[in-house]
Amino acid sequence: MRLARLGLAVLLASPAFAPAWAQEGDARAGRRLAGGRCAVCHGNDGIAVQPDAPNLAGQNPAYLAEQLRAFRDKVRLHEQMNLMAAALSETDIANLAAWYAAIEVTATPPGR
Amino acid sequence: MRLARLGLAVLLASPAFAPAWAQEGDARAGRRLAGGRCAVCHGNDGIAVQPDAPNLAGQNPAYLAEQLRAFRDKVRLHEQMNLMAAALSETDIANLAAWYAAIEVTATPPGR
Repeated sequence: MRLARLGLAVLLASPAFAPAWAQEGDARAGRRLAGGRCAVCHGNDGIAVQPDAPNLAGQNPAYLAEQLRAFRDKVRLHEQMNLMAAALSETDIANLAAWYAAIEVTATPPGR
Repeated sequence: MRLARLGLAVLLASPAFAPAWAQEGDARAGRRLAGGRCAVCHGNDGIAVQPDAPNLAGQNPAYLAEQLRAFRDKVRLHEQMNLMAAALSETDIANLAAWYAAIEVTATPPGR
């Protein structure tokens, strides 16, 4: 995981390989934005408070950004998320992805 | 979170409110199935090992099941997931959702 993220970071840090959408997010700005819009369903710390909403804590930033774009562009259909994401800028998306990705998660599988 | 899940469990345990798709999953069977198909991208413990794949550890089971159905039925489009989910039965879906939901996650937001 850490190595995979490091690899992605190295790739994105190289101007030759950085697509327009791969901008670095500001986790603090993302936190402010998320607190007003996202926390109602996804929780203040990215652990969902609605049973049909996903946890976002510690989620991969590339995945988060891709899904926010898909909701914004109605490639992925979900009535509420299509509305919530409709006006998001690329900066908003990068910031939100950076915020949720910055939440540290640990996973403990149940005993066999 | 715990209360929300408990609420869901109570709801699903009531025959009057249990839709056909709300069957109880077998986390052990889900673990076996996930180990062969899903772990390559989503990790053995549901923490993704590919940067564009989501973590699934501790994810809400209702959300997981809904997304697996959406991939299976090509309502949600993702080339690899549409293929992986194409042959999943409702039992498979319930088992996979139960497995990933059974992984305990803790979230620690960064300091302000």
